[in-house]
Amino acid sequence: MSIPAEAFFLTPGFNGTLQHEIQQMVAEGILRGRFRAGEKLPSSRRLARHLGVSRITVTLAYTELVSGDYLTARGRSGYYVSETAPTQPDFKMDDRPRQDNVNWERVVGRRFSRHEAPAKPQNWHEFPFPFIYGQVDVSLFDHQNWRQCALRALGKRDFEVLTDDFYERDDPMLIEYIMRSILPRRGISARPEEIILTMGAQNALWLTAQVLIGSGRKTAVENPCYPGLRAILDQLGTEVTPVDVDAEGLPPDALPAGVEVVFTTASHHCPTNATMPIARRSALLERAGREDFLVIEDDYEFEMSFLKSAVPALKSLDRGGRVIYVGSFSKSLFPGLRLGYLVASEAFVREVRALRAAMLRHPPGHIQRTVAYFLSLGHYDALINRLGQAYKRRRTVMDEAISAHGLAIAGQGAFGGSSFWMRAPESVDTDLLAARLRSRGVLIEPGRVFFAPGTAPRNYYRLAYSSIPQNRIPEGIGIIAETIAESGPSQAA
Amino acid sequence: MSIPAEAFFLTPGFNGTLQHEIQQMVAEGILRGRFRAGEKLPSSRRLARHLGVSRITVTLAYTELVSGDYLTARGRSGYYVSETAPTQPDFKMDDRPRQDNVNWERVVGRRFSRHEAPAKPQNWHEFPFPFIYGQVDVSLFDHQNWRQCALRALGKRDFEVLTDDFYERDDPMLIEYIMRSILPRRGISARPEEIILTMGAQNALWLTAQVLIGSGRKTAVENPCYPGLRAILDQLGTEVTPVDVDAEGLPPDALPAGVEVVFTTASHHCPTNATMPIARRSALLERAGREDFLVIEDDYEFEMSFLKSAVPALKSLDRGGRVIYVGSFSKSLFPGLRLGYLVASEAFVREVRALRAAMLRHPPGHIQRTVAYFLSLGHYDALINRLGQAYKRRRTVMDEAISAHGLAIAGQGAFGGSSFWMRAPESVDTDLLAARLRSRGVLIEPGRVFFAPGTAPRNYYRLAYSSIPQNRIPEGIGIIAETIAESGPSQAA
Repeated sequence: MSIPAEAFFLTPGFNGTLQHEIQQMVAEGILRGRFRAGEKLPSSRRLARHLGVSRITVTLAYTELVSGDYLTARGRSGYYVSETAPTQPDFKMDDRPRQDNVNWERVVGRRFSRHEAPAKPQNWHEFPFPFIYGQVDVSLFDHQNWRQCALRALGKRDFEVLTDDFYERDDPMLIEYIMRSILPRRGISARPEEIILTMGAQNALWLTAQVLIGSGRKTAVENPCYPGLRAILDQLGTEVTPVDVDAEGLPPDALPAGVEVVFTTASHHCPTNATMPIARRSALLERAGREDFLVIEDDYEFEMSFLKSAVPALKSLDRGGRVIYVGSFSKSLFPGLRLGYLVASEAFVREVRALRAAMLRHPPGHIQRTVAYFLSLGHYDALINRLGQAYKRRRTVMDEAISAHGLAIAGQGAFGGSSFWMRAPESVDTDLLAARLRSRGVLIEPGRVFFAPGTAPRNYYRLAYSSIPQNRIPEGIGIIAETIAESGPSQAA
Repeated sequence: MSIPAEAFFLTPGFNGTLQHEIQQMVAEGILRGRFRAGEKLPSSRRLARHLGVSRITVTLAYTELVSGDYLTARGRSGYYVSETAPTQPDFKMDDRPRQDNVNWERVVGRRFSRHEAPAKPQNWHEFPFPFIYGQVDVSLFDHQNWRQCALRALGKRDFEVLTDDFYERDDPMLIEYIMRSILPRRGISARPEEIILTMGAQNALWLTAQVLIGSGRKTAVENPCYPGLRAILDQLGTEVTPVDVDAEGLPPDALPAGVEVVFTTASHHCPTNATMPIARRSALLERAGREDFLVIEDDYEFEMSFLKSAVPALKSLDRGGRVIYVGSFSKSLFPGLRLGYLVASEAFVREVRALRAAMLRHPPGHIQRTVAYFLSLGHYDALINRLGQAYKRRRTVMDEAISAHGLAIAGQGAFGGSSFWMRAPESVDTDLLAARLRSRGVLIEPGRVFFAPGTAPRNYYRLAYSSIPQNRIPEGIGIIAETIAESGPSQAA
């Protein structure tokens, strides 16, 4: 039997080449049982004419299908569905209505879904004025070299790194480059046993919290603070004290007595951008030693120090093994990578490694090796250099536009960074402001989610310049100022 | 000042091209501060002669370094270290001895590191007779098409999928293909809200256990059982009852009264390969409905059904939402991918999604899209078809060699799979046997780790044929038989 050319048609908007589309149509027809073993495919000439594509496109698709054993070529007589073609078992689907008889409210041991999702819309790329934090600007990322490194890591030579289950291990090549090229940027020296890779900083914080706080510890966080950390601690249900930060970040004197675990973003406070001075760092570590507590340092944006050199990390001052350091490639490369790392005492890293093994084994090998290559060839440092230069220009434009429109900066970071922490007039609710701005094409981040519940002023917001093109900044800031001016008084009334 | 060509030398065994090596040497020299802004590089001719490479290689490396802003080209006069070249801050490293003053025994809230690491040596590829389970055979994997799909997913078109932070979402394209192409193989129909991606089956089991058992539930597992599951439950510290399996897998009647959560590998019991017949599946689900417990089905190897069609999954019979289904790409693609999925009621998936978001956000976007392409072009089904054919041949050779040498099979699976569950004479301790065999180039898996502590017979072992070349099988089995014959009596004595 022959399969007529009319059994095939192209779908408008298909994401891929014509050859891929033809391959996919034939493979699906065979897998679904529409085309059966021994049936003859239309000749490439006939199918090409029917679909309005070139004959070579059809021939290439057929050749690929032969190599996947979907088709066999019988000399001049053409292509047939292979006798040993892949199939899918043909189960009679049970289509009786299903009814969920489980009382999930009762069954779910712990509730995790209380937290609000971040306010970023999925389609933020389509907004003309995205003052949005932590995403990648396509115009700045070194896509070409990333692709080359990824391709190299897909090669035969790295086959084992790509495919094997590593259980508890990490790619030694990447660990080596983190040790040699990244940690020295922060003044940190560490041995390989003191480093473990994680699925981003979020995962590093999560693992740390599980290991240290699992059974309950007196914990302090900064206020305001990174909402992802608050989500982790809320899920653990531990006792958390929010400590208000000032212009120098977390004040060690304000930590509650008997605290056991302290989370800080010392070098670049999230979200106010404050940097903790050396004296305060020493005071914090000194108190940690005296009162026997641990400090988790989330050093999430250290690469973006383009105005002056970053101060060394808290971890670099740690002589007693009390600092657990969290680093991430999300800001310097991209967040979709999901790659970060922890640096801490070997006894702690050993526990994290065992937990990570039970939880997910290890971050995918291909990603580890790609980053190792990207680091080794100098692309990483070149990228940070380029990002820093672009952010510096954007920051100047932001600064000018903000002061021209009389908006108030609440925190801006002396070293660089990628955002301003902003204060609107007290009468402005920035949740409402963000909603209004969104309808005008402007994305900002309302500040409420950063504060501990009950303590939140409503008039703060964050403006990032890592994803917005420089020439859009003045108009965007103008719209924000205009919308604040409109919304302020009516809310106050 | 000029940098002499003698500042550069090639390292034997460098993992990469000569061009990459030159790029890396120059970039590192600049980042470390050995080469300073404005210094002149040796001419490409001079450096090429010194290193004994072609001049074009040096020129290409220099050109790449210019695009990364490490070097600038000044017309005919040559290449100079760029004034704006990337640098690394030069911290004076504090090299006073560090002393770990933390009592980690006390500080670590929960202990995770009690479990033995799996017995597989890292360098298993170098053993001539690797009867090792769950790794990839380079000769069978479709490396070329995987690479093409990965490359496509690295394209500009998929930039957002590659780089963005998705928070709680998955790649809709992959979810669609799992729904359309994979779940129907198991008789399962599901809506997108009922599916969530995980970092492999291990992570799916882990997430499920956290959500269901977090605060303690009466839990039953099969005995023997997958050790990765036992590690998860041990870390949770919940009450676990091991239930002995028979030739038809888990007997529902043997479940303890009041059980709330039951883990099973119904279609392909791990490690005995037993398949639960339909009657027993119905009995299990019926009791689950009557006594209101949940069943977690780990369907870890369903693709390897090359002897006869797989029976549909337990989940396909589930009318009441009691079955939580775990699938994985580790066996059909490769374990280093770290990609699996859960299919369950929406209320449950919502909790898993919130936990996953706090824990790691989402599996990396590039991996999700690569698998989606691999599925869409039919490569996945073609690969399974090819694996099945190879495994079938290997299994026959295994069968013949095993019976020729008089070894005893304890479980082999009616549908296919990739391993035999073996029983040595009672006097043989397979931990010792495995150690002896290893020194003879043979890797087997001792059975002890699969059994609940205290219940473990010492004379079982697993022989997988997924990674060993077919022509090595007879000799490998011969060595095993010989070693058992030598070791058995002496131990019994």
